[in-house]
Amino acid sequence: MIKLYDSSLSGNCHKVRMMLGFLGLAHDIVPVDWAKGEMKEAWFTDINPRAQLPTLDDNGVVVWDSQAILVYLARHYDESGLWFPDDPMTMTKVMQFLMLGNEEIAALAWARVTVLMKQPRDRLSELQSKGKAGLAVLESALSTADWVAGTDHPTIGDIACFPYAGMAEQGDVALSAYPHVQAWIGRIKALPNYTAMPGL
Amino acid sequence: MIKLYDSSLSGNCHKVRMMLGFLGLAHDIVPVDWAKGEMKEAWFTDINPRAQLPTLDDNGVVVWDSQAILVYLARHYDESGLWFPDDPMTMTKVMQFLMLGNEEIAALAWARVTVLMKQPRDRLSELQSKGKAGLAVLESALSTADWVAGTDHPTIGDIACFPYAGMAEQGDVALSAYPHVQAWIGRIKALPNYTAMPGL
Repeated sequence: MIKLYDSSLSGNCHKVRMMLGFLGLAHDIVPVDWAKGEMKEAWFTDINPRAQLPTLDDNGVVVWDSQAILVYLARHYDESGLWFPDDPMTMTKVMQFLMLGNEEIAALAWARVTVLMKQPRDRLSELQSKGKAGLAVLESALSTADWVAGTDHPTIGDIACFPYAGMAEQGDVALSAYPHVQAWIGRIKALPNYTAMPGL
Repeated sequence: MIKLYDSSLSGNCHKVRMMLGFLGLAHDIVPVDWAKGEMKEAWFTDINPRAQLPTLDDNGVVVWDSQAILVYLARHYDESGLWFPDDPMTMTKVMQFLMLGNEEIAALAWARVTVLMKQPRDRLSELQSKGKAGLAVLESALSTADWVAGTDHPTIGDIACFPYAGMAEQGDVALSAYPHVQAWIGRIKALPNYTAMPGL
């Protein structure tokens, strides 16, 4: 059985929940209290030395990092091959958006944490600027294609960018400047077997 | 011809220079002045909207992000298939270290910039702690294998982590606590066609 160590409010965890849903994979959710720092406790760092959520355990095979988990699930369970295509150029483009999702788009996650958890705001505008730079890259890619890597079918590159782009406004970044991103958010939510998340 | 937009002091650029060297690929270097912010000028953001180095141009095909460029070069030019193996589990493990290289190990890069460029040190200890967490993950992986993904041959996961781990001491993080990482640094430098970098 697949076990997902999960925090319901985490967009990184949501990437994995979405992928499990799209692939129709049965799984157990193990809630870990992120706000209380439970992932820093020894029982958890024994499983994932990076002390991060999400973490996947597939019958004893442990995979950490949300992007790596997407690759794991696509390569092991996606018989269509469409979620992480093998073609070298498409794979490269998907990788670009896995990295954008982990870098500029992840800045939107930290802006969101700052606002939602009422943390000190000394880095908020820096995070928002970085996040907007990421949204601008998405906007540009989505102005000529339905999906970020330019494919006819969504890929894990779309999933990697979706949750924190979709929740940008929780970090006080308006999405109205990014109409193609907004339309893409709608397309993703309309996909068969889409898994919903509170606030998204 | 392959063209690499490059900054000689950048470890991210060095990842690509190393890969080009290992694969024996002829290329032109286009120096971009990182310290002067030349990558934010319009001529460059027209090429790479993320305004980042390195950026690769392979006969008009532009690829940004150092990790994505490693994937591009491996999938297009590595006939051995060993640098980014196709096997799902190995690919997943390599991905984990591409992400570690972009996250905790990248914190060592920012610590290095802070120290070398005499920037304000208010975030230095936070960056060093994050970097040490990354080195601890590397140390653990390298205590049971020669290469980070547990393969018999180095992968792009090794390349992604190598430059900033290898230059950790330039950010005032001692490597003496990580003997397996030190031995691995030596193994990488001893590889055929290794490309050297000043200060590494």
